[in-house]
Amino acid sequence: MQPVIAVDAGGTHTRAVVADSAGRCLGVGTAGSGNPTSAGLAAAMAAVTDAVGTAVRQARAAGADEGATGGGARDATRASAPLEAECVLIAMAGHGVNAPIPAIAGAVEAAGALGPVRIESDILAMFSSGTPAGDGYALASGTGAAAIRIRDHRIRRTTDGTGWLMGDHGSGFSIGRAVVRAVTADLDGTGPATALTDPLLAATGVARDDTLYDGRVRTLHDLIDVVYALKPVQLSRFAPLVFRAADDEVARRIRVRTADGLAATLTALLEDDTVGPLVLGGSVLTAGVLPDPELRERMLAGWHGRAEPVIPAADGAIGAVVLALVRSGVPVDTAVFELIGSSLAALRGA
Amino acid sequence: MQPVIAVDAGGTHTRAVVADSAGRCLGVGTAGSGNPTSAGLAAAMAAVTDAVGTAVRQARAAGADEGATGGGARDATRASAPLEAECVLIAMAGHGVNAPIPAIAGAVEAAGALGPVRIESDILAMFSSGTPAGDGYALASGTGAAAIRIRDHRIRRTTDGTGWLMGDHGSGFSIGRAVVRAVTADLDGTGPATALTDPLLAATGVARDDTLYDGRVRTLHDLIDVVYALKPVQLSRFAPLVFRAADDEVARRIRVRTADGLAATLTALLEDDTVGPLVLGGSVLTAGVLPDPELRERMLAGWHGRAEPVIPAADGAIGAVVLALVRSGVPVDTAVFELIGSSLAALRGA
Repeated sequence: MQPVIAVDAGGTHTRAVVADSAGRCLGVGTAGSGNPTSAGLAAAMAAVTDAVGTAVRQARAAGADEGATGGGARDATRASAPLEAECVLIAMAGHGVNAPIPAIAGAVEAAGALGPVRIESDILAMFSSGTPAGDGYALASGTGAAAIRIRDHRIRRTTDGTGWLMGDHGSGFSIGRAVVRAVTADLDGTGPATALTDPLLAATGVARDDTLYDGRVRTLHDLIDVVYALKPVQLSRFAPLVFRAADDEVARRIRVRTADGLAATLTALLEDDTVGPLVLGGSVLTAGVLPDPELRERMLAGWHGRAEPVIPAADGAIGAVVLALVRSGVPVDTAVFELIGSSLAALRGA
Repeated sequence: MQPVIAVDAGGTHTRAVVADSAGRCLGVGTAGSGNPTSAGLAAAMAAVTDAVGTAVRQARAAGADEGATGGGARDATRASAPLEAECVLIAMAGHGVNAPIPAIAGAVEAAGALGPVRIESDILAMFSSGTPAGDGYALASGTGAAAIRIRDHRIRRTTDGTGWLMGDHGSGFSIGRAVVRAVTADLDGTGPATALTDPLLAATGVARDDTLYDGRVRTLHDLIDVVYALKPVQLSRFAPLVFRAADDEVARRIRVRTADGLAATLTALLEDDTVGPLVLGGSVLTAGVLPDPELRERMLAGWHGRAEPVIPAADGAIGAVVLALVRSGVPVDTAVFELIGSSLAALRGA
């Protein structure tokens, strides 16, 4: 079997991996955002070419072409021919109906590789980064928030993931918005004082100035200018403040609402017909909710009574390799799963 | 004294009035949105020229130039000279530091008028549309929501009015967003069923279809497409749905939160040093909160104990004329205030 190419195209980084059918990672490459929604199509495709190109060159140096062709000769003719992959699997947010498959195929070809392109959900890849199981659940909260129920490595049900305006309960955006609104109400006198105000003013570079213009303090005028100059989802950058203001009652209410929102997203998904682990990922979970025993407990209330483990997500590129193998008809057991992880770690350490 | 020109430049309509120093309205003109933020600068200025031009022509036909010049001759030379106004006052939302004064002066000149341009708050004009008093309070909720405390016809304090992302508690946008989120949670299974769902689907033209794509019902996919194609503030168009779903618990909670949010905005503003009426305006108040005795009571809880009246806002153009006269040194008593209203009504009826 030809090797597979797996790409985890995130909003910040793109990771590409070339792996053989045993799960051994032969090449890895990284680049900037490969998500068309966050980076724009041209920049995203350039990142895919960059990351895949690096992974393919490293894999070729390791003899990726040899197994399939049965020969060891890597002459000039062979090196200039594209690497033929069994499957080119790209995990990305906002995948789906309007996925730019032809553009991705072009970006992969420009990187010196060929193969059928498949797009998969980034949360599904996140699930498979934590477990070789085909059944189970995943809950993610970064800038957005969503959960999925998985059967046979496919999404059976999705809850939330409806974006910053319609949902994303318990997401980084929701928390950041709540921080900005609480500080606005504090400065405006319409809400309680909060310890979030000084850190937000520091984070936005706004100085305290109680001079009134049009009956409103200058501090608030300046904060309005800064906030509306951001894209709405960029408010998620203020989410970490809420986990640092431990004793503040306003911050505590936002934390509790975050855990309860994520609990509702998870609970609506649970069904007796699906038994398997719960994989948790995203910065709000790893850096905010999970380290706090009270919040973790609230969030996982609906999970109680299930015997299956709760597993932190690992590198999404691992999950993309798992899905690329599974979609190519290669069963991924614990041994294959561990080889993917250890060989990828070895490549990165190299 | 020369006549004054008063313009109420709203997000939907622009009204311009030419009035003499006694408060008698001599000409009126209307056009589309004159607010640069909602219509764009060029379209807004064209609307100002249109409305002012109509008002000036009507006023000239009524002899607006005669009092100031002492003559009755309206020969061709006179008619082609600009109408000199004591003051050209424009009331608009988002007035303030970056107001396009030169552009407005140009738009007024193109309409055949001249005079010093002043920009004033639309909520201040709303206050003066309801009362000739110089002191008091105003609370407005349309797409946005804000309140002001007024002394001597000037804004002393503003609460809220911080926009859809940072505040606007109890506004049409806040209600519309809450409706969309409640329906999303209903369709997603993460929140309770609500009687708001069918009306919102009807309003957005989305058909019920429970087929799952990526683990999510098609109805929700389609609603996501419709909602994210709107500008965020356009969610305010769904606000009326919440006042029609009388017996729905989800809608009731949104209504109560609306009244409580507006109560907080008003209460933070009240001071013993300012005695005067409270003027209430904006579609959320006139069509939603005020007709409901329970909501009205909740919203005005902080106002209780004050002897001053609660007055519904009238035509913002009346308030703009009041401000134009006051800023020109003309005291506006009850008789002048009533003449403004009656002469404007007569012009419109003509």
